[in-house]
Amino acid sequence: MSRKPVVRMAELEIDPATLEAYRALLTEEIEASVALEDGVLSLNAVSIRDHPNKVRILEVYANREAYDAHLQTPHFLKYKTETSGMVTALTLIDVDPIAMRSKL
Amino acid sequence: MSRKPVVRMAELEIDPATLEAYRALLTEEIEASVALEDGVLSLNAVSIRDHPNKVRILEVYANREAYDAHLQTPHFLKYKTETSGMVTALTLIDVDPIAMRSKL
Repeated sequence: MSRKPVVRMAELEIDPATLEAYRALLTEEIEASVALEDGVLSLNAVSIRDHPNKVRILEVYANREAYDAHLQTPHFLKYKTETSGMVTALTLIDVDPIAMRSKL
Repeated sequence: MSRKPVVRMAELEIDPATLEAYRALLTEEIEASVALEDGVLSLNAVSIRDHPNKVRILEVYANREAYDAHLQTPHFLKYKTETSGMVTALTLIDVDPIAMRSKL
């Protein structure tokens, strides 16, 4: 099993008419993933203040296997299915950690 | 004292010739800030894989007072002074949290 963490930034644009529902589904998915999956280390989602339908998510998984397992979980599949009509643009950016520290 | 967290994303470009030194100074600053300052809740810095001199930092402070105090700390001032010639572009983006969960 790989020991290298998988870190990624997702940049999304959401149909403004669906933004409230999208935010609720994303919150539910993040809470379930970090609570239920050992290999999901951190999920931090924010919206840009002046463009609240632009969402950024910084995702940290323990390794590639943890990421692949995450994609098969019921809570991720629910999120993906129910938000598919709400997301108008999605860019996934592979990133490498420099330093990550949290008291959250 | 405000109870509203301050969350921000910084987008930086670093002079590639100084990247190794920049990364060391940023790491030192992040470790000191989260260890020594109660109000610095989380600092997550990453580089974009295909453009390693492009850095993104997601910053979470307990409130405005904690952020203002952070700017006056010796470790932040050292970072700011010593990296001033390394940072070729800096964009600060005010963001609002949607959901932030971490086991890190």
